[in-house]
Amino acid sequence: MAEDPRIDGARLSRRLEELGQVGAIAGGGVARLALTDADKAGRDLVVRWMKELGLAVTVDAIGNGVGVRQGREDGPPVMMGSHIDTVATGGRYDGNLGVLGGLEVIQALNQAGVVTRRPLAVAFFTDEEGSRFQPDMMGSLVFTGALPLEQALGTAGIDGKRVGDELRRIGYSGPAPVGRPSVHAYVELHIEQGPVLEAEGYTIGAVTGVQGISWTEVTLLGQSNHAGTTPMSMRHDAGLVAAEIATFARRLAKEMGGHQVATVGFLTLSPNLVNVVANRAVLTVDLRNTDEALLQEAERRVFAFAEQAAAQEGVKLSRRSLARFPPIAFDPVLVGRVEALASELGHRVRRLPSGAGHDAGILAAVCPACMIFVPSARGVSHNVEEHTAPADLAAGAEVLLRLVRELAA
Amino acid sequence: MAEDPRIDGARLSRRLEELGQVGAIAGGGVARLALTDADKAGRDLVVRWMKELGLAVTVDAIGNGVGVRQGREDGPPVMMGSHIDTVATGGRYDGNLGVLGGLEVIQALNQAGVVTRRPLAVAFFTDEEGSRFQPDMMGSLVFTGALPLEQALGTAGIDGKRVGDELRRIGYSGPAPVGRPSVHAYVELHIEQGPVLEAEGYTIGAVTGVQGISWTEVTLLGQSNHAGTTPMSMRHDAGLVAAEIATFARRLAKEMGGHQVATVGFLTLSPNLVNVVANRAVLTVDLRNTDEALLQEAERRVFAFAEQAAAQEGVKLSRRSLARFPPIAFDPVLVGRVEALASELGHRVRRLPSGAGHDAGILAAVCPACMIFVPSARGVSHNVEEHTAPADLAAGAEVLLRLVRELAA
Repeated sequence: MAEDPRIDGARLSRRLEELGQVGAIAGGGVARLALTDADKAGRDLVVRWMKELGLAVTVDAIGNGVGVRQGREDGPPVMMGSHIDTVATGGRYDGNLGVLGGLEVIQALNQAGVVTRRPLAVAFFTDEEGSRFQPDMMGSLVFTGALPLEQALGTAGIDGKRVGDELRRIGYSGPAPVGRPSVHAYVELHIEQGPVLEAEGYTIGAVTGVQGISWTEVTLLGQSNHAGTTPMSMRHDAGLVAAEIATFARRLAKEMGGHQVATVGFLTLSPNLVNVVANRAVLTVDLRNTDEALLQEAERRVFAFAEQAAAQEGVKLSRRSLARFPPIAFDPVLVGRVEALASELGHRVRRLPSGAGHDAGILAAVCPACMIFVPSARGVSHNVEEHTAPADLAAGAEVLLRLVRELAA
Repeated sequence: MAEDPRIDGARLSRRLEELGQVGAIAGGGVARLALTDADKAGRDLVVRWMKELGLAVTVDAIGNGVGVRQGREDGPPVMMGSHIDTVATGGRYDGNLGVLGGLEVIQALNQAGVVTRRPLAVAFFTDEEGSRFQPDMMGSLVFTGALPLEQALGTAGIDGKRVGDELRRIGYSGPAPVGRPSVHAYVELHIEQGPVLEAEGYTIGAVTGVQGISWTEVTLLGQSNHAGTTPMSMRHDAGLVAAEIATFARRLAKEMGGHQVATVGFLTLSPNLVNVVANRAVLTVDLRNTDEALLQEAERRVFAFAEQAAAQEGVKLSRRSLARFPPIAFDPVLVGRVEALASELGHRVRRLPSGAGHDAGILAAVCPACMIFVPSARGVSHNVEEHTAPADLAAGAEVLLRLVRELAA
């Protein structure tokens, strides 16, 4: 006789703590770059937990691990998951929460004796961070067919080693067919990695989608001149044009409002001397929007301004795209259910887009997908100081449990 | 019976060429950092020429070399000169022209059998460039008493070696009293190192003074944030404030007009990544003006703007002065004579300030001083491509000759 399954927040926190000890670094952080020894140790721990919870674990050729819990019927499972690789100085919540939150849901159902109609699954996808091997989200891209397996396996990392070799070395080049099982729906619990929920006092974010991302590198070639002897009117200052582009990008984002963000996070001058007008500047422009048409408008306006500013200063401009992803919208029904369930549980909830990429955004191409966000203290992530309050972790897992039960019913 | 002394432009060019072979580097340039073996070889050659021309050569404790030609009377000489050290990738005209132009004047007078009333002198001052040992203009600063000798001798260079040790090593720690001979007037022939004369079709510049220089390093501390997940309104973007300061500095210089120049030539961001809002930016602001009150106004306005921009973004600003020199006005009578003599010789001449520091600016503290500029092709200096047409070199030396004869009469 099934009782009402309940999330055990302390147990979830303990698992996060224990997994956080694997590859632990000073300050409470974690370094488990994809396919390193630390990543292998983290995978081994998670696989052990999956097996202890009775899941049937498979690993595919790109190293994605999936633990399946039988339902009353066969068919595509409702999948929870995320990733357990981290950046070089990462925290213990990014990714890990989605995987261990899934295990907590499984354990709650096990203890309550609840068997769902559809199977359930918990997945960890390989190399979500992209810190060692690019592109990021490699495992989910291969899983959904968006990236050919052979190409992924041949990818050399920052240390020159290849994905395929490293998967074999750590014993995670698995026999399971890539892209199986088919997924009925995918739900990813994740920390926000931004400041909005905390700043506005929300516990749960119902993630509407992933912002489209446009990364462009701009190179400006002017003329190196003496800062004292060259009249302002005779200058071709590459650094000035770079600064003008950076200030315009901010102005544009404010003007466009909504979900438009714009960042110049990288900027270098040459020769970079106090008394020499820069003859060369390289900068990057990071533009993001939830709306593809608006993102294209932002691109158009930034680069029209840049061309004009460069021409006015007599500076040559060239640019190349470093990355371009269109926005992804999560399944509107699922987003609505996250919002409704969080409210029913008494949590303050708001809709918001994700400014960062996630495996859920990749899975959305092949199945209904959504994400549940919980607050990040001060918005800090990819940092050893990453933190989410235990009560918020439990609240997110509770919403995950409810949604998964509905989807599997 | 004295004939009319005449400058031999070909002879001057030959000496420039020959001295340019000492420490020659690819592309026609020269590397004779102060007190290196190459500098010693250059000094030896110039001293040999001085002696061949009959000058009495003395070297003082900071390595300044002075060659004196007797006049009909004793007393302080009319001094010509400049420096023969270069930057690491320098040209063959910067500094060298003032010294070798002085030797050409001496040789012209010798050949014509002209003896002036006052003595004449040709000087080369130690470490004008400051590329190896700071401050720049070290030799003339010690000569005029503006920098204590012991402090200068104890100065460690970029290679850790000390001025005093290096002077002894190359044999230029001389016995002559520092600051002697007293100077009746000082005239320095120099390339413009800027584009104005060439661009406007002038052969001679009558240099009115040296611009005041204000170098400030500004450090901005914001908060490192994710470029995707952090709304524009929650950012503390140190890089944005840096860019705003750079664009404001340009705007201000245009607005103030006149001789105001403003340059942000150095700018670095941390962590300097495409998708991370910069938490730290360091930039330099180089402000110059011929008028001290206007220079102070520029400083006030730039830093008032910077403070306000930083406050608005929630970024902490700190700054420190890297250098601050008030403007120097050359002797108005001498400036007028440069202008008049150049005109009499049929050259197009204009008054202009020097945007760079020179030994003449230091000497101006102890005697009437002035400078004669000749055009720099495309304004290029501190570069192997530095070039001045032979006819312009000769024209400058001719003005130098006339002026020195007047001053020594």
